Amino acid sequence: MKLRHWLPCLDWGSRYNRATASQDGLAAVIVTLMLIPQSLAYAMLAGLPPVTGLYASILPLLAYALFGSSRALAVGPVAVVSLMTAAALGPLFPEGGAAYVGAAMLLALLSGLILTGMALLRLGFLANFLSHPVISGFISASGLLIAVGQLKHVLGIQAGGENLLQLLPALWRGLPQVHGSTLLIGLLSLLWLWWARARLKPLLQRLGLSAAAAGNLAKAGPVLAIIVAILAVSWLQLEQAGVKVVGIIPQGLPGLSLPTLDLQLALQLLPAALLISLVGFVESVSVGQTLAAKRRQRIEPDSELLGLGAANLSAAFSGGFPVTGGFARSVVNYDAGAQTPMAGVFTAVGIGLSVLLLTPLLHNLPQAVLAATIIIAVLSLVDLGSLGRTWRYSRQDGAAQLATLLGVLLIGVEVGILLGVGLSLLLFLWRTSRPHMAVVGQVPGSEHFRNVERFAVVESPAVLSLRVDESLYFPNARFLEERISELIAARPQVRHLVLMCPGVNLIDASALDSLEAIVERLQTSGVQLHLSEVKGPVMDQLRRSDFLQRFGGQVFISQYQALKTLAPQTTLDCLEQKHPHPVQLPHR
Amino acid sequence: MKLRHWLPCLDWGSRYNRATASQDGLAAVIVTLMLIPQSLAYAMLAGLPPVTGLYASILPLLAYALFGSSRALAVGPVAVVSLMTAAALGPLFPEGGAAYVGAAMLLALLSGLILTGMALLRLGFLANFLSHPVISGFISASGLLIAVGQLKHVLGIQAGGENLLQLLPALWRGLPQVHGSTLLIGLLSLLWLWWARARLKPLLQRLGLSAAAAGNLAKAGPVLAIIVAILAVSWLQLEQAGVKVVGIIPQGLPGLSLPTLDLQLALQLLPAALLISLVGFVESVSVGQTLAAKRRQRIEPDSELLGLGAANLSAAFSGGFPVTGGFARSVVNYDAGAQTPMAGVFTAVGIGLSVLLLTPLLHNLPQAVLAATIIIAVLSLVDLGSLGRTWRYSRQDGAAQLATLLGVLLIGVEVGILLGVGLSLLLFLWRTSRPHMAVVGQVPGSEHFRNVERFAVVESPAVLSLRVDESLYFPNARFLEERISELIAARPQVRHLVLMCPGVNLIDASALDSLEAIVERLQTSGVQLHLSEVKGPVMDQLRRSDFLQRFGGQVFISQYQALKTLAPQTTLDCLEQKHPHPVQLPHR
Repeated sequence: MKLRHWLPCLDWGSRYNRATASQDGLAAVIVTLMLIPQSLAYAMLAGLPPVTGLYASILPLLAYALFGSSRALAVGPVAVVSLMTAAALGPLFPEGGAAYVGAAMLLALLSGLILTGMALLRLGFLANFLSHPVISGFISASGLLIAVGQLKHVLGIQAGGENLLQLLPALWRGLPQVHGSTLLIGLLSLLWLWWARARLKPLLQRLGLSAAAAGNLAKAGPVLAIIVAILAVSWLQLEQAGVKVVGIIPQGLPGLSLPTLDLQLALQLLPAALLISLVGFVESVSVGQTLAAKRRQRIEPDSELLGLGAANLSAAFSGGFPVTGGFARSVVNYDAGAQTPMAGVFTAVGIGLSVLLLTPLLHNLPQAVLAATIIIAVLSLVDLGSLGRTWRYSRQDGAAQLATLLGVLLIGVEVGILLGVGLSLLLFLWRTSRPHMAVVGQVPGSEHFRNVERFAVVESPAVLSLRVDESLYFPNARFLEERISELIAARPQVRHLVLMCPGVNLIDASALDSLEAIVERLQTSGVQLHLSEVKGPVMDQLRRSDFLQRFGGQVFISQYQALKTLAPQTTLDCLEQKHPHPVQLPHR
Repeated sequence: MKLRHWLPCLDWGSRYNRATASQDGLAAVIVTLMLIPQSLAYAMLAGLPPVTGLYASILPLLAYALFGSSRALAVGPVAVVSLMTAAALGPLFPEGGAAYVGAAMLLALLSGLILTGMALLRLGFLANFLSHPVISGFISASGLLIAVGQLKHVLGIQAGGENLLQLLPALWRGLPQVHGSTLLIGLLSLLWLWWARARLKPLLQRLGLSAAAAGNLAKAGPVLAIIVAILAVSWLQLEQAGVKVVGIIPQGLPGLSLPTLDLQLALQLLPAALLISLVGFVESVSVGQTLAAKRRQRIEPDSELLGLGAANLSAAFSGGFPVTGGFARSVVNYDAGAQTPMAGVFTAVGIGLSVLLLTPLLHNLPQAVLAATIIIAVLSLVDLGSLGRTWRYSRQDGAAQLATLLGVLLIGVEVGILLGVGLSLLLFLWRTSRPHMAVVGQVPGSEHFRNVERFAVVESPAVLSLRVDESLYFPNARFLEERISELIAARPQVRHLVLMCPGVNLIDASALDSLEAIVERLQTSGVQLHLSEVKGPVMDQLRRSDFLQRFGGQVFISQYQALKTLAPQTTLDCLEQKHPHPVQLPHR
């Protein structure tokens, strides 16, 4: 039972049969065809030799299949994590050199250790702090940044930079050096890939293929682009004409090796590794949950952490770089019928065979085609309309999304995401530091109490009913003191203040101090504090202090009971009038 | 009206008369007698020449009197802020040198700018993030740290350090060099001050003085110690015998001067200045609020920020260092009858006269006496029992307090307070990320719904009533999805899920996404989501999205209405049974 919790493969493995295997096998063929160009492209995006992308698509898939709980997640290099890898290593080492490759392995090792550690310590909740607006802004901005960053390969020029402010001028300066044949290859690839994505499937269906077969075949569009481009480069001798190609890719499976254990460097890379781990985990869990829900399955966040941790550790030991579950590839895997993580094992075998057999054929693959593959893939991640929707729903969430978006585009990926997370936390705390409080009155003929400013309700002159719509804790403890002073000062005839606490989920030590101060001040002005509708867990905690003995008031089970006890003459009994609908006042 | 808001002195000044002046004058005499040794001592604690303490007690008091709103707050150098000043400057410059003094003025300037900026931008809420346990832990630990740090002056040895791990071994190593006469002076001062604090007032009362006069005279205990010590040093020529004395204090009022505007240094000091400002503000507001409440007055946090900001700016321009409202001195000021900030003006005049006339007399004042003054003053801040009380009430708050305490003692003041603030935020977010949710049922014979695990209540088999005791926002959005999946999976006969939202004070964009995902998943298993008791502000926000149109359920004004509509046959009408008390189940 315990082992099965940590090794979900024991569960599905024990029921594995030939029918499932053939479904997984078909899905694996399609994902492999998709993964070959993607793994080369994302390695290029990460600033690494192309072969590391293939290496990162073998062992990590096997490791995830052992420990991961999602049935359809396709693990491997993904665009956003590759961009973050480049952003972390670019400032430290010359791109593509031995030190850079070693540092990428170290980054995967750190990421693997962090994810595994989070699994063992059950710290998966940390990923929740990346709010949806922040993730959405981050993904859109990363997509844009990646697409602009890849334009240099399509144009055949040199242009570097970590943000648009650096990239755009660099591209502009490079325009006079545009390389004609490279541009032609790049544009043709872009057009073909864009067309294949949108139109190839319907066309194939019209040609008589079944919807499934047409869909699967359309997924191979990038492979066709690669084959045609390689043939063109070879026949027309375009490499000699200056078209940049992938070049020599070492043949053979990766050897197992330890990443360089440079403690100084590890400390330097730790913040980036933490962000890469969290972002990778969130992307992976989001797609995993969506796909699992479609088949009424569940994924286990702890298993996901462990699976991704193992994947990254094995990437570190086999010459790869940080990996995670990719969105597009997982959807393809699911659509192609993958039933279990065994599809990932088959995909790993496919990539392994490619490394053994295909690498010499990839020598003449133009970088412009890989760049086009990346651009088409990442532009589908960009959803700027989401910003408007979020802004309309909530200014604060919109501000966090905008800050993330602009931060990533104009400063860089790490600063952008930290800006978004920091701002969303700060805005939440600011909001919660001035909580909504409502003076409430009884809805006539019911036991229900609503805001006096929104409903036609009955108030008792001697009893002030105040509903606090927030947990009482340190950011708002002082605000509560001030608000109550104001309310009592404005109502000289009040003798009892009933704090109605259905929205109070916590009273922390700071708020307890404040309540004691409030009781003391109220007593000097002849007002007694009472509580009502205090939740069980809050009562349990209050009992651990001597507040309930000392505050001199009562704790009522409901606001209605409080009013019946403290002001019986003004309480409308529910016998008098039978449950009418409360009358809502016009908005003030 | 507007000007009066920013200049509270216009308010009390317009009604100022001779009776108030004489009360303020008496208080000022007592506070001046207390402030002379304290200002010298706290300058020494901050690592500054003694005269800067006097300078920091003239103009800042006048500036606060113009802008501050507290009637009894006594502004000037205080122990904790002086310790923080020393901690910020100690690692950068040799103690007491010209660069050190200049940097202290710059620190006051930054602190003044931060406080004034916070006042103008209404950012006073930022101070709330220092929770009571963190402040309490910080003050106790600072008191201990200061007391241990001053022991070197009592022993007449050299011993430096920012934390106990450095201070205690340094003191131990210095023990063989203990200077006998210094130790004797120090011990006698400690004994006298401790005795005067505890016993002098009752003794004077027994000798026939009124309680007020006895109290005021007892406050002059430190002044007596100073006089006796100066006389002893002069007559016995103890300075030549190696007793360290205050030495030459420049005579005359401080000249107005600009602090060195070194931008590099300013950036380096900014974090320290921010902490000093927040801690100073919190200390000042706490004591100000307590004293104001005693006379049923109010203080205005924005005016306090402005008053303290002006005080620090004027400290910066007159050779001082960061100041704030001190706890002990303010209480003395209040007890001695201070009615308005004019008492502060009179105190400033008193200190100004001392600088003009008394400084030559202070030459022979032994440092050991000042150290004894500090030790006795700060030990009253140490309240280790509070840690136990906080821990019993709440493990999280206790952990934050303990972390602050240990951080300050073992690492340093800045790290300690940041540790406490960070931990209290993280613990709050962790707690809120797994909110309390309760399946509720109807209390028979009432319209009230309570937790099925705590009360004998009636549940409907087809309608699951789930109360969420927390705002729905990004840290707990995913948790909600998981919890609802579990509950529905365990109850196959459920057709309606009513989310009871009295504790939901906010639904942010992340939670809205989650609710949409929940609705979609529930619908595939034949369950409809409804909401009940949604608060006005939350409804307003939901109306800004299209969720209410699309989710297919109803929003009920109360859980009772929801049950009456969705499961009329199982709802117990309030006519059947007249409001019995709900039966509480034994704890499970």
